[in-house]
Amino acid sequence: MNKQQRPPQAIRPQGPRLMDLKVESRLKNIKHKIIVMSGKGGVGKSFFASNLSMAIASLNKSVGLLDVDFHGPSAPRMLGISGTRLFGTENGIEPAIGPFGIKVVSIDFIVPDDSSPIVWRGAIKHNAIRQFLADVNWGELDYLVIDMPPGTGDEPLSIVQLINKIDGALIITIPSNVSASIVKRSIRFAKEMSIPVIGLVENMSYFHCPDSGKSYFIFGKDSTEKLAKEMGVDLVGKIPLDPRIAESNDIGEPFFFKYPDTEASRSFTKIAEKVVNFIEKEKS
Amino acid sequence: MNKQQRPPQAIRPQGPRLMDLKVESRLKNIKHKIIVMSGKGGVGKSFFASNLSMAIASLNKSVGLLDVDFHGPSAPRMLGISGTRLFGTENGIEPAIGPFGIKVVSIDFIVPDDSSPIVWRGAIKHNAIRQFLADVNWGELDYLVIDMPPGTGDEPLSIVQLINKIDGALIITIPSNVSASIVKRSIRFAKEMSIPVIGLVENMSYFHCPDSGKSYFIFGKDSTEKLAKEMGVDLVGKIPLDPRIAESNDIGEPFFFKYPDTEASRSFTKIAEKVVNFIEKEKS
Repeated sequence: MNKQQRPPQAIRPQGPRLMDLKVESRLKNIKHKIIVMSGKGGVGKSFFASNLSMAIASLNKSVGLLDVDFHGPSAPRMLGISGTRLFGTENGIEPAIGPFGIKVVSIDFIVPDDSSPIVWRGAIKHNAIRQFLADVNWGELDYLVIDMPPGTGDEPLSIVQLINKIDGALIITIPSNVSASIVKRSIRFAKEMSIPVIGLVENMSYFHCPDSGKSYFIFGKDSTEKLAKEMGVDLVGKIPLDPRIAESNDIGEPFFFKYPDTEASRSFTKIAEKVVNFIEKEKS
Repeated sequence: MNKQQRPPQAIRPQGPRLMDLKVESRLKNIKHKIIVMSGKGGVGKSFFASNLSMAIASLNKSVGLLDVDFHGPSAPRMLGISGTRLFGTENGIEPAIGPFGIKVVSIDFIVPDDSSPIVWRGAIKHNAIRQFLADVNWGELDYLVIDMPPGTGDEPLSIVQLINKIDGALIITIPSNVSASIVKRSIRFAKEMSIPVIGLVENMSYFHCPDSGKSYFIFGKDSTEKLAKEMGVDLVGKIPLDPRIAESNDIGEPFFFKYPDTEASRSFTKIAEKVVNFIEKEKS
């Protein structure tokens, strides 16, 4: 076949197409992929994603955590592996290893300095995400937990489009109507992208005062139940406020690992069991 | 002058350039423009921006609030004017009127349904922001408070570029190191954009238990002080946790207006005074 006979469209798409085949080939040994979303930031999405990863791993599953929250990649800190630098072998980029043997890749590992601003235009972000998916040597995994950027904008959209098949979405919220109205958008987003919604998780549910013995609903009460019913999704679990959570996250110690015998950790185990049941029932 | 003699570059930029002149002309009767930023969402940025607007207005200043937080435009709810629809006259779009006579424009007013997903690509968002600035009839204002989208990505960048001259930035954080490391990016962002940093505000500082009488530092302690020192910026104020804040925001009643005699509202007044001092000292 000479040059002129070759159809031009066979050449053009090679660059990006080659990449997408690489993404496909990299992700094919991962049995289940779930995304952790929030309508907005600051509801504890990264705390939830990292502690859920540990809780699933503690059920004897092999787990990976992909942190693509460009607005503040904090999952590594919450797993006690902040500051890790990734290295490459001939098989690709090797993920960091966290508690319970979790394989972790985070945007935090490639941002040089903690305080450098991430003013990255859309296309650069998209390429960074693509590279994470195409070049990381995840190996065989039962679960890949993806800590998404907050919201339902360009970045979550890009990620969902790149990964192609996602097995379930968890949506993190806090008990307040203001948050609830925003969370509805995430549910719609998942449905429009044909991602099964595993359910809602209510973080910061209440503060159990150790001195008065009472529970205080600092961010409100009952609204997540109402929201779940209204949207026809499950309320998978509630995680209470606990000063030890902030403390662990701050000093960079994994909460679920350090404080297994707390109300919050017991709640994580229950949620992990529900997630596994949902996903593996769905597939069988 | 015939067609061929006219330089082509005189024609091309008319579309966008005309718009920018409109933005300039619309904003020229606004004395001071300040942005409310957060490194990430969910730290109470919109709560802060709306209550700060009321607090500044209560100092006998004319105030506008521009809510361009695409990830969850919740300021109107916190001012008790959610569900307002904007109307246009021959002078442009008229802002809604909130407590203390605040003029309010929010992305919430043009999104049709509370639960519709805002999967807007960058260019559409940019145009929406431009229209807000070019077509809203703000009139004369002492202060325009701008409730920014969280983070330091494309959207804050677009907004800052469009508004051109911003007189000060407030950065909202919560007392946790995880949050602090992200806040540093906002400080750098403001400095790179030549916006004077008024300072940090610590939201959700502590919970004063009404039964035990003790204060609980649920999200951590002292880290904002350290951060402010380290970054060479002021800690402008602290706002405590209070179940009445969530309650007011949820039912759509303006907290500062409804509960003036609380620790949190007194803190807002002090912060408003500091902001006014900073800005008006700067200008004189």
